[in-house]
Formats: sequence, C-alpha cells, structure tokens
Amino acid sequence: MGFPQVEAFRGGENVIRVVGHRGARGILPENSMLGFEFSLSIGVPLLEFDVVLTADNVPVITHNHRLHGPTFRDTNGQFLTGEEPKVSSLTYEQIRQFDIGRLDGQSAYGRRFPDQAQLDGVQAPRLLDLLNLIDDPKYGDAYLMLELKSDPDLAHDAPSRENFVGRVLQEVRDKGLSSRAVLHSFDWNLLEECQRQAPDMPSSYLTQLPENADDVGEDSSKAVCPDFRGRRDEIPSLVKQAGGSLWCPYYADVTAENVALAKELGLCVAVWTVNEHEEIGRMIDLRVDAIVSDYPGRVQRQLSDLGMGWHVTHQ
Amino acid sequence: MGFPQVEAFRGGENVIRVVGHRGARGILPENSMLGFEFSLSIGVPLLEFDVVLTADNVPVITHNHRLHGPTFRDTNGQFLTGEEPKVSSLTYEQIRQFDIGRLDGQSAYGRRFPDQAQLDGVQAPRLLDLLNLIDDPKYGDAYLMLELKSDPDLAHDAPSRENFVGRVLQEVRDKGLSSRAVLHSFDWNLLEECQRQAPDMPSSYLTQLPENADDVGEDSSKAVCPDFRGRRDEIPSLVKQAGGSLWCPYYADVTAENVALAKELGLCVAVWTVNEHEEIGRMIDLRVDAIVSDYPGRVQRQLSDLGMGWHVTHQ
Repeated sequence: MGFPQVEAFRGGENVIRVVGHRGARGILPENSMLGFEFSLSIGVPLLEFDVVLTADNVPVITHNHRLHGPTFRDTNGQFLTGEEPKVSSLTYEQIRQFDIGRLDGQSAYGRRFPDQAQLDGVQAPRLLDLLNLIDDPKYGDAYLMLELKSDPDLAHDAPSRENFVGRVLQEVRDKGLSSRAVLHSFDWNLLEECQRQAPDMPSSYLTQLPENADDVGEDSSKAVCPDFRGRRDEIPSLVKQAGGSLWCPYYADVTAENVALAKELGLCVAVWTVNEHEEIGRMIDLRVDAIVSDYPGRVQRQLSDLGMGWHVTHQ
Repeated sequence: MGFPQVEAFRGGENVIRVVGHRGARGILPENSMLGFEFSLSIGVPLLEFDVVLTADNVPVITHNHRLHGPTFRDTNGQFLTGEEPKVSSLTYEQIRQFDIGRLDGQSAYGRRFPDQAQLDGVQAPRLLDLLNLIDDPKYGDAYLMLELKSDPDLAHDAPSRENFVGRVLQEVRDKGLSSRAVLHSFDWNLLEECQRQAPDMPSSYLTQLPENADDVGEDSSKAVCPDFRGRRDEIPSLVKQAGGSLWCPYYADVTAENVALAKELGLCVAVWTVNEHEEIGRMIDLRVDAIVSDYPGRVQRQLSDLGMGWHVTHQ
C-alpha cells in the first residue's frame, strides 16, 4: 500500500530528505508561521510540528501540553514563571494573547538556540493556519509531519483520545489535505486510534529509548512512549506490527542494524532532532531516509557538499 | 543637518541597531532577494548589500567586481574555476544565467558558512529588484546601506566613477527612495562623487586598517580604501572632515577611544562584520550604534538577553 506522503519522506540512491523541526527552531521561533514559511522558502517543504487541543477544541500548534515558560510571554512581556497552565484549560483566544516570538535566554532551554531570531507580536498558530498556507498551489510539494501530543494525564482516557484525533482529522479533511500529512506520535495508543479513524492516512511512530538522555529543557514524551529498554534493534519490527509506515527514532538510538531492518520491512526512517554537524554526518552515513533538524540549512549544506540531494518532487 | 536615514542606523540609550550583512549571509545565499526578505521578516529592516555596474550599465547586487567562483555556478551547475569574469564585461542578462543559490563547500570561503541554506535557481538581483521590494508600504521601515563597489582597475578613472554613481542614484531617485538609503563605500573618491551628485544623501565611510587581517576568501577592499596604518584613533576626524555621516569600521579596528570620538563628532558608528558571540558582546559593550552581521538573529538574541532593543521606527 503506497501512501504518497510516505514517499515524500523516503530517501533514495543519493537523496536524504530534510525535515524542518518545529519549522526551523534554530533560526526562528519554534512552531511559528514564520518558521514554516522560512523552511518552505529554502526548499525544505517537509514540516514537522506539534498539535495540542485547546479547551474550545481548537487544534493549536505548540509543543508542550502546558504553555512553555521559556517561550511564552504574557501581555506584560514577561516569560511565564511558576506552574505553567495547561493548553487544554485555555481557549485559543486566551492562548493567542501570549507572544511566542522570543526565547528566555536565562533558561537552560533558551541557551540551546543562540541564533534564533527574536520577534514581538508572534502568536501560536492554529493547525488551520498552517493548512491554509500549504493549500496555496505554490506549496504543492509541502508535506506535514503532524505530531499529536498526548497529555500524559489523559494517556489512558479513550474518549479524549477519540475527540483529539477526530478534531485534527476533521480539519485536515475539510481542507482536502489528508494525502499531504502523516500522523506522528510517541503515543502508540493514539496512533492506533488514528488508524481506526483514518485508515487512508499513514502512521509515523516516534520512539526514544529511556537509556538515552533527553535534550535539556524538553518536555519529555517518554511518559507516553512504550518502554523499549534493551530492545533497540527490535523496534522496527514492533512499529511494523503496529501498522506504522514511518519509524522516527531519536538519532542516538539508531544503528546500522536497526536502520537496515526498518528498510527491509519497508519502513521510512526519519531521525530527530539532528543539529550537530558530526551527528548529521553520522546519519548521512547510515543512509536514513530523512533528517529532522532545527537547522535545515545546515543539513542542506552537508548534503550539498557530498553531492547529495534532498528535493521533494510532487508525488 | 539631519538625514532621516542616518537616524535609522543610530543607536540609543538602550538600543543598538542590527544590520543584515548581504541580507543574512550566514543563513541564506548572500546578496539574494531571499536573504533580504528573511532579514525583513525577522524585524531587521536595515539591509547592507553591494552594487556593481554591468556592461549594460545595470546596477546589480553582488559583492565582488568579478563573478565570485565559490558562489556562482554555471548552467551546468559547476562552480566557476579559473579566472573569474568581470561584472563590467557582462550584461545583466548574462549574469542572471548563473545560479548563486549555493556555496562551494570545497572552498575556504564556503567553509565559513556551514549553516547557509542551499538553493537552486537563484539569480543575482538588480538594485531595482530590492528597491521594488522595499517600496512596498509594509516595508516602510526598511533602510538601505548601499555599498558602491569600486573596480580597483578603475579607481582613478573619474568618468567611470561619475557614470557608476549616476546610474545608482538615478534608480534610487526614480523610485523616490533617496531618503531611505545611505551611500556606503571604501572608496573615498567615490564618496566624494556621491556628495557632489547627491548632497541630499548621507555618505557612509567604510574603513579597514591594513594591520588587521581580512576574513578568509574575501575580495579585499583595501586596494581602494585609504591607508590609515597607525592612525586608528584619528579615523573618525578624517571621516568627519570628508563629509561623512556614518563611520563603518572593521570591528577589530574599534576602540573605546575612537568610538567616543566618533560619537562626539556626531557620526553614527556601524561596525562590520560581527559574527561571533564574543565579538558581538564586545561591540555591545562599546555601545556602537549598529552591528552589521551575517547572523542578524544571533545579534538579536544577545541584545534581547541583555534587555536591549534594536527596533527601527519609521523616521
């Protein structure tokens, strides 16, 4: 069964795809329209981003299930401190009062992105805003790696899962873009629900081994990811059994063995989040299908220097 | 005499301006429309770029007076090798056959910009293309640091100088943008000609001391810049005497003394090309007026972390 959007992420003989992580987090505010537009403008039309549901059931593009202190400023221009409010407790109108245009340089998280442009008056976009953008015929080669972020408090709540998946799919379908998105998650139960509601769309399985440390300041998704401790090279088989089309491992978890197995099983292998030159080089050597990076231009540079391509042609 | 465009580059109590160097060379192909658009999109509306005259008298935006091998690819996709043709020997139509979307990673020059996005089908723009862009009312806060690049072979040729300055001014005036540009050069004879032909526009004097080494792979402008060896702290007085409004020294040449003198003389001090965090910090400490950088987002990050601003408001 050939999903066209899976082929958009699959590499080839001399091709590794580049995927802009949260737009292009190293260069522009993460999960902002500006970041997506930048990635599209440099010929990186594969966009990874995160969706959470608001209190009024609006799929909003933001990474954490709580407003992220180091990136959300209140109407006084102050970064949030103290307990972060849950996205699910706020309406979209309330969320768009916050400005996501800057990073708190005092935070460990903020210090990771010293080149990120700083802006004022930037709002967290809705999924609908991004769908409207790529619906423009000039972005006909754009494909979405749409991550559904589970609230760990509701990880075992089937009705909430059903509602979340349903709301997201409704927006994608209303725009006629279901062949331009892959449904991507760490939460395998949620991906099962995706397959139930959308057998016409491919699932993308995120994994991260507990033994490899998270990047500093990340809201870990390990809470909702199955625990594959010590089973590194079995993961591709488990993804395949679960009905996955893409396998998206943390870059530190991939080996020549598990990449070979995944390819043998017909899975497309997209590694995240690969930012350092040395690690990008290692991923190229392993011939993964796609590299998800906060610095998509940096990955292009390395591929270009090797005479390799990354271009996506309309499927 | 108050030129509004000089005030756009002048810092303030808690403000240092950020100027995108050749657009944003660290992030996107240098002197490309994409680079200018990126800089504008991140709230950096002060654009530095270079103009050379073609054989058919078109002011084209490119840095060297010869096509630059590590950034120009021919119709076969090969970077130029051997003797580089002079811009003045080619028509604009010939120049736009070359693609400037990538960097030769094998060159010393190319290795300096490991994060630059790589594109295909990018042409060197005309000055007119950039003027048309900033003529859009949404870019009403954009100002140009328009560098006129002298051909060293013609440095003493008065008629060629007169023609070059005349052609550039005509385009700027035809678009009604003379109050949005400063005329910027290493060639003091050329700036004298600018003042003769355009007393209504400010001159911006670039300087670089011979004792400080050029960045690798640059086409040195020392050949056309007066030799100020050993006179580092007198330069601001010489710029002032020559009729300058801005002084634009190489960042390694500035000291607390010469910055203080320049400010006392009413000059606006814009330093170039400041890319490393440590040097950006040193320039902030010296309270220069403006920092010209290949990484404008990086400069914003450092200013933001210090609670400082860079915003340009419509003058």
